[in-house]
Amino acid sequence: MKDMFALPESGVYLDGNSLGPMPRSVPHATTTMLRQWQDHLIAGWLSDGWYDAPQRVGDAVGELIGAGPGQVCCGESTTVSLFNALVAARALRPNRSRLLVDADHFPTDLYMASSAAHRSQATVTAVPATHLYEALRRHGSDVAAVFAAPVDFRTGERRPLAELTRAAHDHGALAVWDLSHAAGAYPLAVDVSGVDFAVGCGYKYLCGGPGAPAWSYVARRHHTAVAAPLAGWHAHRDPFAMESAFEPAAGIARMRTGTPQMLSLGALEVAVATIATIGVDEIRTRTVALTERFLRDARQVLALGGFELASPADPERRGNHIVLRHPAARAIAAALEARNVVCDVRGGDLLRMCFSGAFLDTTDVARTVAALGAVMDREEHCHVEVERSAVLT
Amino acid sequence: MKDMFALPESGVYLDGNSLGPMPRSVPHATTTMLRQWQDHLIAGWLSDGWYDAPQRVGDAVGELIGAGPGQVCCGESTTVSLFNALVAARALRPNRSRLLVDADHFPTDLYMASSAAHRSQATVTAVPATHLYEALRRHGSDVAAVFAAPVDFRTGERRPLAELTRAAHDHGALAVWDLSHAAGAYPLAVDVSGVDFAVGCGYKYLCGGPGAPAWSYVARRHHTAVAAPLAGWHAHRDPFAMESAFEPAAGIARMRTGTPQMLSLGALEVAVATIATIGVDEIRTRTVALTERFLRDARQVLALGGFELASPADPERRGNHIVLRHPAARAIAAALEARNVVCDVRGGDLLRMCFSGAFLDTTDVARTVAALGAVMDREEHCHVEVERSAVLT
Repeated sequence: MKDMFALPESGVYLDGNSLGPMPRSVPHATTTMLRQWQDHLIAGWLSDGWYDAPQRVGDAVGELIGAGPGQVCCGESTTVSLFNALVAARALRPNRSRLLVDADHFPTDLYMASSAAHRSQATVTAVPATHLYEALRRHGSDVAAVFAAPVDFRTGERRPLAELTRAAHDHGALAVWDLSHAAGAYPLAVDVSGVDFAVGCGYKYLCGGPGAPAWSYVARRHHTAVAAPLAGWHAHRDPFAMESAFEPAAGIARMRTGTPQMLSLGALEVAVATIATIGVDEIRTRTVALTERFLRDARQVLALGGFELASPADPERRGNHIVLRHPAARAIAAALEARNVVCDVRGGDLLRMCFSGAFLDTTDVARTVAALGAVMDREEHCHVEVERSAVLT
Repeated sequence: MKDMFALPESGVYLDGNSLGPMPRSVPHATTTMLRQWQDHLIAGWLSDGWYDAPQRVGDAVGELIGAGPGQVCCGESTTVSLFNALVAARALRPNRSRLLVDADHFPTDLYMASSAAHRSQATVTAVPATHLYEALRRHGSDVAAVFAAPVDFRTGERRPLAELTRAAHDHGALAVWDLSHAAGAYPLAVDVSGVDFAVGCGYKYLCGGPGAPAWSYVARRHHTAVAAPLAGWHAHRDPFAMESAFEPAAGIARMRTGTPQMLSLGALEVAVATIATIGVDEIRTRTVALTERFLRDARQVLALGGFELASPADPERRGNHIVLRHPAARAIAAALEARNVVCDVRGGDLLRMCFSGAFLDTTDVARTVAALGAVMDREEHCHVEVERSAVLT
């Protein structure tokens, strides 16, 4: 599997949950697209399949998350896709004025929930994920949509996607999910789970590259009614007629926006194919095995060093990353980086690590254990300069 | 100049106003970015300047449009950038409820005006560009913003940007411009002209590639008050603190959204540098000369063929493209394409051509005249299959 990714020659990369490494198929795909641009110019939009790419890549993402064809489209940033989905979801429940939101959501999710609410005469009720059920019971008939993530971006804790979706439906609300920390990490079944809307980024477990396009899922049952605030000309029924009046396209195309950024989308396309080739089940199985091995082999180092596992101990209750709580997390991450072991830090005291089964193996686990042991033994974290890079997502 | 672009070996490309050709600097820039991704992984956001790219490329675009540094940022599609700018502009005039819009705007502009109005309790008043002054006089005190383009995307006719901006200000309204058909085509002076907001695409005259990121300008005087609906975590004062509450960054950074699509943005960066190296003045001068030469040398062909120049005859009143009205425009475009002369069609009967001085020369004009002559002489347009590609933007 390692052969499918172009990894740096030395080091262990435990931050694939922030920015996935480059699949080896990407440079060729990029070169091909540049060649298409050079040789076919404007004609490439049809002759080279650029125009259809948002939906074609969307279908490929759909396969990874358990969505049947024609329900996912790609193209904008996660931020933009979230706003689009949230405003669209709220509009499907015009008589309900509340967005019920996980208070521990990733910042952009909270900002976009607030903005979407503001732009659709709704209010945001943010509660910790564990209180979402209670909040549903309390505000039930006024909740337009519940908006959460199936993996806490800090602790890695899983939220029960199907169960919370069902609870939302029981109260007449829709379920909107940010799957950024789940898609490509473990098997999902958005269709079967009854998810209404989902959004996810392309640059984490999908390995689409820095800032890779995000994607949006809308369950087919909503396709005739859904209307998005950012429906640009590519969402039009007949985009090339260039009509002044907006008439939405049929199906998921109505969630498209404007012209997609093709260089980035082309890279995402082959990256998603790489993940599909490995298989999400396989990635999950291997990730759990590697993570468990790390926790076992590093047990002594972690105990002596004063680390606390802030993620659930049961792998079934975690996404694909773990966090170790330590007051010197930032300095430890910097010291590990000096030893070519890259992880990141959240909230000041959470050391975040992802033993991705897509491109790591037991050698990487052993090297991580050794590096962490050496850092703690020699107190290297007391002598390291903490750089801002350690906290980048 | 031709050497700065990787053009197909044969043919004449008159559609650079839809999708600019590839600057030769792009493949190297793309390869470099892939190498950065491979070798530096997450650290690339700081070590390779990815995080600052939206503003760095923004400043470079700013130089082309007469904007001082720190007023332009790049990253999303034109559609998304328009929505963001229009909602933000309307919010700066809370007591005025009308967006006054050019009724002949590009479709996405109209759709986003409508959506932005809907999302900010405003209404759209769409009138032909020539009626905007009268509409300002009629609705003056209720107009939050005037939204227009300085070049009609169909006819190429210029709108007086500075004059209309002044008229908007005289009525207490803001001026929002879509500069997609102007930036990189001819000199602009957005600062001096008093423009409030501007948006433009990256893939036409800026040659950033298929779907290249768009950019947004906000005049410095609005930076403390402006608030955007799509302000994601990259618009935050301290993005890496990952705070739940949104606090806008200072300056143009508050118009940023989420994580930018770096492969596409990296290509745009070197493309903009190419345009800057040639110089917008030079591009304009050469374009006017080539276009005038075409109109002179093709005069007989055009007259005999029944073409009518639907653009202003005075180059000062045009952008960098012209349109020829002909009932068989679509078939003529297809016949020209069969002769490797690529132009496009708007509205069924408008043959659109751009004799871009950035990458064409007098040889291209002569070949276009000859090809058009041959098509009309042999009535090739009566025997050609019209493909959809002829109407792609």
